[in-house]
Amino acid sequence: MKICVAGTGLTKFGELWDKSFYDLFSEAAEAAIKDAGISKDSLDAVFVGNMLFGKTDGQDHLGALGTTLLGMQAPAFRVEGACASGGLAVHLACQALIAGTYKKVLVVGVEKMTDEKSTKISSALMGAGSEEEREAGATFPALYALMAQAHMGKYGTTREQLASVAVKNHYHASLNEKAQYPMEISVEQVLASPPVSYPFNLLDSSPITDGAAAVVLTSETRKTGVFITASSVATDSVGLSGRASLTELSATRLAFQKAMREAAIKLSDVDVMEVHDCFTIAEIMAVEDLGFCKKGAGGAFIESGACRLGGEIPVNTSGGLKACGHPVGATGVKQIVELSDQIKGKVGKRQVRGAKVGLAQNVGGTGATVVVNVVQG
Amino acid sequence: MKICVAGTGLTKFGELWDKSFYDLFSEAAEAAIKDAGISKDSLDAVFVGNMLFGKTDGQDHLGALGTTLLGMQAPAFRVEGACASGGLAVHLACQALIAGTYKKVLVVGVEKMTDEKSTKISSALMGAGSEEEREAGATFPALYALMAQAHMGKYGTTREQLASVAVKNHYHASLNEKAQYPMEISVEQVLASPPVSYPFNLLDSSPITDGAAAVVLTSETRKTGVFITASSVATDSVGLSGRASLTELSATRLAFQKAMREAAIKLSDVDVMEVHDCFTIAEIMAVEDLGFCKKGAGGAFIESGACRLGGEIPVNTSGGLKACGHPVGATGVKQIVELSDQIKGKVGKRQVRGAKVGLAQNVGGTGATVVVNVVQG
Repeated sequence: MKICVAGTGLTKFGELWDKSFYDLFSEAAEAAIKDAGISKDSLDAVFVGNMLFGKTDGQDHLGALGTTLLGMQAPAFRVEGACASGGLAVHLACQALIAGTYKKVLVVGVEKMTDEKSTKISSALMGAGSEEEREAGATFPALYALMAQAHMGKYGTTREQLASVAVKNHYHASLNEKAQYPMEISVEQVLASPPVSYPFNLLDSSPITDGAAAVVLTSETRKTGVFITASSVATDSVGLSGRASLTELSATRLAFQKAMREAAIKLSDVDVMEVHDCFTIAEIMAVEDLGFCKKGAGGAFIESGACRLGGEIPVNTSGGLKACGHPVGATGVKQIVELSDQIKGKVGKRQVRGAKVGLAQNVGGTGATVVVNVVQG
Repeated sequence: MKICVAGTGLTKFGELWDKSFYDLFSEAAEAAIKDAGISKDSLDAVFVGNMLFGKTDGQDHLGALGTTLLGMQAPAFRVEGACASGGLAVHLACQALIAGTYKKVLVVGVEKMTDEKSTKISSALMGAGSEEEREAGATFPALYALMAQAHMGKYGTTREQLASVAVKNHYHASLNEKAQYPMEISVEQVLASPPVSYPFNLLDSSPITDGAAAVVLTSETRKTGVFITASSVATDSVGLSGRASLTELSATRLAFQKAMREAAIKLSDVDVMEVHDCFTIAEIMAVEDLGFCKKGAGGAFIESGACRLGGEIPVNTSGGLKACGHPVGATGVKQIVELSDQIKGKVGKRQVRGAKVGLAQNVGGTGATVVVNVVQG
């Protein structure tokens, strides 16, 4: 496949109490449309990735809401798959473009999370898990903590290695003016931050974030530009108890293998990655499941600096979910924005030199949905 | 386009207190898979149309939940567009099939509404409307009542004509064992039923329903069978105040015109229709906006018997939303099931003789989203 990323738009990520859901949607959408150099009337369809707005504000029907905000009548869709909503929206938008039904589409991922009490958001987010997990009183920190404990027990992954993920991603975020937490932190600070769910402390955990990201995707057959060359989705059991393993996401492996075949590239072609580091263990499992190191060696691999800017394979140059922020429905779209901007050489101090191939891994729940998108220059 | 409807499945519609959301999903899905004569492992993807389960039960992430229930790892998506969620899921599934990414997909529309107090469901359904409408305390009966009053004022549509829609659809439902209210009613009974929002009484209004519908769609190029030959979506302002007119749904007209072009058929080719009669006025506006009679003449047209089984163009042979029931996320998929079964000659006493071309109109909110699907033998 070859879908052109014709334009990108991104709001600041953070606690944006002076901006509404509607403001965030419009800001990202209009920026992407402007960046694409098109008029909004030339858009054939709008895809919206969002998880929570129906629960927190009562507003569903976000496809038509999006076209209403843009003042247009194009076909419009809301796609939801928990924290993978944005990646899934990109995937389905690509299908409609390949089908030829639409030629130019806008994909907007958006979430407004900080207007609610964090306890209510934590509870709402559990909609990504299973009924049994909710009934057991589990939260996402606790579920990922189970995976981290299993990983530590099986592979000897250390607390410091987990912390090194957050340290790296905060460093990257310090180079990103859109990031929610653009400040460097140390391993010591992570280890001394308040406990959340063992082994995680506060600084192992991605924050609650407001933000929106948008891309204009087209089926144009330009010679130069940035293109999505693969988009692949896989699923696994919604609840952890249905999984074959607690220390890997099989859906990541499945989606990744399909994506590599679709893009006709190999692992060593990948120059830069955005992966779903909702908790520090998630990035460790991601680099393993994507094959960048042996299973179980992810902690040491990241601690070694291999995934830091300037390293072997820079991961989460945006700051990732951890430090750029995690407005859940926006994350999968923001990954495309970051990779596209990397390939265009537009990201300033966090530029990966000569980046041509980017890979995005977007996870829903604890790994029940995984989307892998490949972006190439 | 030519997408094969390889199998269909449908649960009973009604107050199904002994069945869970999970039961309904599985029953419809497994029936469609069995009807298609395939193994579930041959499915390449699952699309789920649902509006409310995240709000009522806290469970989002219904794509992966669906594959979990089916015990498989295929790519999976939840599509939401209020009461048009099912129709939109069908539309996006068709795109993925045309793209060639998937060859066989399952689309399940499902909603479990009667476990909650009806006041909570009415409030949750307002997620299909606009923030202003919610703040004004509007409900869907009230919003459609505004449209009915405008239609009565402008065109002289009568209370009896509105009632005749319900009478006809209850007659059709009396021939459908899956219907929630399979009993005939009279115009007098409609006029004597408890008032809801003038001009609507209880029997002008579609009920709150549990139910699920499923179709297996494939990109096979069979010579014979039933096919979706057009699928078209249009939007309008989410809130009524943003519309050009209160007496028509411009999104119906737009989607219909595109669908006719796509299927390369004309109005007179259509043998049977399922339209979105959430309130009696909605069917009157639908037959007008689809061009089966002059604007404003819909009430008289339906009262004349033209849309009754045996009439010029039978509408809502299933009993429609009014009498078969309206599990909102399921409705757009159920329309495809009914039309496909009509074309296959499988619907017994409510069979439209020689039906070859069916048209489905599925509405989200008060008309902010409209999906028109064409099904042909």
